[in-house]
Amino acid sequence: MPPMSKKLPTRQEDYSLWYNELVKRAGLAENSAVRGCMVIKPYGYAIWEKMQRQLDDMFKRTGHENAYFPLFVPKSLFEAEEKNAEGFAKECAVVTHYRLQTDPDRPGKLRVDPNAKLEEELVVRPTSEAIIWSTYKNWVQSYRDLPLLINQWANVVRWEMRTRLFLRTAEFLWQEGHTAHATAEEAVAETRQMLDVYAEFAEEHMALPVVKGVKTPNERFAGAEDTYCIEALMQDGKALQAGTSHFLGQNFAKAFDVQFANKDGVREHVWGTSWGVSTRLMGALVMAHSDDEGLVLPPKLAPIQVVIIPIYKTGELDALLERIKPIQMGLIARGISVKLDARDTERPGFKFAEWELKGVPVRLAIGARDLDAGMVEVVRRDTKQKMSLPLADIVASVDQLLTDIQTNIYERAKSFRAAHTTRVDSYDEFKRMLDEEPGFLLAHYDGTSETEERIKDETKATVRCLPLNEADEEGICMVTGKPSPRRAYFARAY
Amino acid sequence: MPPMSKKLPTRQEDYSLWYNELVKRAGLAENSAVRGCMVIKPYGYAIWEKMQRQLDDMFKRTGHENAYFPLFVPKSLFEAEEKNAEGFAKECAVVTHYRLQTDPDRPGKLRVDPNAKLEEELVVRPTSEAIIWSTYKNWVQSYRDLPLLINQWANVVRWEMRTRLFLRTAEFLWQEGHTAHATAEEAVAETRQMLDVYAEFAEEHMALPVVKGVKTPNERFAGAEDTYCIEALMQDGKALQAGTSHFLGQNFAKAFDVQFANKDGVREHVWGTSWGVSTRLMGALVMAHSDDEGLVLPPKLAPIQVVIIPIYKTGELDALLERIKPIQMGLIARGISVKLDARDTERPGFKFAEWELKGVPVRLAIGARDLDAGMVEVVRRDTKQKMSLPLADIVASVDQLLTDIQTNIYERAKSFRAAHTTRVDSYDEFKRMLDEEPGFLLAHYDGTSETEERIKDETKATVRCLPLNEADEEGICMVTGKPSPRRAYFARAY
Repeated sequence: MPPMSKKLPTRQEDYSLWYNELVKRAGLAENSAVRGCMVIKPYGYAIWEKMQRQLDDMFKRTGHENAYFPLFVPKSLFEAEEKNAEGFAKECAVVTHYRLQTDPDRPGKLRVDPNAKLEEELVVRPTSEAIIWSTYKNWVQSYRDLPLLINQWANVVRWEMRTRLFLRTAEFLWQEGHTAHATAEEAVAETRQMLDVYAEFAEEHMALPVVKGVKTPNERFAGAEDTYCIEALMQDGKALQAGTSHFLGQNFAKAFDVQFANKDGVREHVWGTSWGVSTRLMGALVMAHSDDEGLVLPPKLAPIQVVIIPIYKTGELDALLERIKPIQMGLIARGISVKLDARDTERPGFKFAEWELKGVPVRLAIGARDLDAGMVEVVRRDTKQKMSLPLADIVASVDQLLTDIQTNIYERAKSFRAAHTTRVDSYDEFKRMLDEEPGFLLAHYDGTSETEERIKDETKATVRCLPLNEADEEGICMVTGKPSPRRAYFARAY
Repeated sequence: MPPMSKKLPTRQEDYSLWYNELVKRAGLAENSAVRGCMVIKPYGYAIWEKMQRQLDDMFKRTGHENAYFPLFVPKSLFEAEEKNAEGFAKECAVVTHYRLQTDPDRPGKLRVDPNAKLEEELVVRPTSEAIIWSTYKNWVQSYRDLPLLINQWANVVRWEMRTRLFLRTAEFLWQEGHTAHATAEEAVAETRQMLDVYAEFAEEHMALPVVKGVKTPNERFAGAEDTYCIEALMQDGKALQAGTSHFLGQNFAKAFDVQFANKDGVREHVWGTSWGVSTRLMGALVMAHSDDEGLVLPPKLAPIQVVIIPIYKTGELDALLERIKPIQMGLIARGISVKLDARDTERPGFKFAEWELKGVPVRLAIGARDLDAGMVEVVRRDTKQKMSLPLADIVASVDQLLTDIQTNIYERAKSFRAAHTTRVDSYDEFKRMLDEEPGFLLAHYDGTSETEERIKDETKATVRCLPLNEADEEGICMVTGKPSPRRAYFARAY
């Protein structure tokens, strides 16, 4: 089934086509019959499951519980928090009817039953603040009910006009945390904590270095007081927002009248947060690490960490497999996920290419002659380095190699980012860099929406964030010459 | 937050009200602002997660992989398999527009944008055969691509008019397996295998004895050639269909033109199956085991298996907790999930009632005097039996007790079912039993749809299934006197 006939387009030739073809050929996802919606294929879903499992553990360790809220938001609830409604109204799918009937004009076909119109339209959730806060109203009475720390794994729909597999799809999978607190300080601390969780996940599991920052008002989540984000750099020098964590202030509490009695018995509105990452992370994972031969997966998220390919002459496969089995079992016993590709219908070269395309971190090619000599041929996917390693401690060596690959992929992405992060002090230099050496640009601007808009219109670059963990440095706006308290991260972005 | 003020209604008083109140008060689920849709609360979701994890492992062990397909089904695909379309058309939510706009007549309110009407309506999936088989067309070319063994965890929507928490909701969560095979025999074997998986899950994890059987044509899944099911008996003597596995024949393959080249190069349509269980299982779990004090959860699915409640005098809590810690750690080290309820604001009696309501299988009440005497007070939830057990081997004792409780709950449900399964040979007796001693009725009928309909109309009882693993016994239809090759299971059902 894997279409191995053609080579991938290279990143150099056409980065965008390379990405799209890679996602499809590696079996991660494909477009569906539904405009803008994708099918996540088994290999892609297996990676997403590993991401979910890890994130879910991290959420639970920080005290959160999972729950599930309805897919639909009645229009009257949807419009209750005005800014949020305004932000999502333009791209939401709306259910208006609850029945189909036989079409009297076209035998065998169906049409919407005009007598089954809903009294109130239902919005397919683009995000769940409205439905969740309408529920929290009944869950919160007193300070003893707080904090409320809840997460949901769900599908959401945003009617995007231009879609790309994983990066921007009409339906996507995500998790959305929604918490309620007694004080603003606690809510801000929660917002920051979850940003840290996302950054830790990105760096330690996806091997993806990220900048932690805060969005400008222009780029804020609709209905939030502050939006924090993690931003990553892709190999084409474009930025990708990989996760967001919002301090909602009392906006939703006021819109849905969620109040609690404090210790003195005085009623106050609660303070909220929400935070999410989505299947978009799959796009980031592919774009950050992969090469012209295919995926490069960090071992911690690879569904298959080691592939074993027997090298044999006709008639000798069975005997070889007997000798391979202890190696395979040894790796499995170490907690390593192993695929033995014993297909007798394909040649080793074909198999090498296929598992390279699929990004398996370590490949063992095992033949009888090597085994006789007490050696195994090992190739790591990230550097393509080929090694001959002693059979005697092959399990420990492979285990160590997986750790090294995880680190190397991260360090490589970090070096790439360092090499593509530039401080620029003039608008001309800014524009030249975007066209000639795209990446993160650290630049001064006057902090106004007007200047931000102008830069975006003229260069397609946006303020990705005001970084959290970097020293502030005063300067002068590269566009207007007005004072600037600190540099912002700019880039063109996905 | 848990409303402990009122006692639950008893099962005897009002079984239906008892169920509904229990689901809400134990924190499993509640109704939402959306007609017919529920909110699954954290404690309920934690049980569902345990079910998911176990089922997912079982699916993977039988060779299945997870994937994800779109939420929406374009109308033209939805109507392609005629019987399936006909079966679900009457209860499906339909998306007709993709944008809201400010309502010019009502400031601050939104309305559907009349200029954003979809060219083709989208049905919110009530089940995914249509969207999945339209995809399989591209995935299957040759016999080498078969079997295709895929499962999806998803939400689905069926516009039910009368809804009940977990048992019948407009939106519910489920898994749906969709497989494709080269031969009818293989597909039937898959259908039966997954029925066995469901039965094993129900019996060994939910402690729920089930009858495996096949549905009559009247009760078949729309678009299937055969529907297999597992049927369970609730404490009010009504049956509940707990899972179904469908042999689809070539119906969907033909509707979506899914063909493969066999080993001789001849093109044939593939053979399909689909199978699913849903959050309905949560309803079955509650109804089968719980009592008038609250939930009774089988240890294998209980989010909290053991609750520890300190018994102390004012000022002595901290010292006691120090002595409790080793017990708690010992249980955790054994893989048991433990909750230490150290709230200083509630009395032990209140805590006892709360954890009883929530169905925690084992309760340890630990006071300094018992510890001094080397004993611990242990209460099991299923029988309410109170024991004083030696502190020295408390961890092993509790572990064994959890196993015993799991077995006991299952055996108890099995005895209940045996006591409420009756062979009846006359229609009068059949009707009398339904009213006076409801349960499974094993009866002969002539196997026609007409008689089945008549029985349903006259008694509200349906053929639950023709059992798979019971000896056939010829007889005479209790209604028409015509010959019957075997007895069927009848019951009133959820």
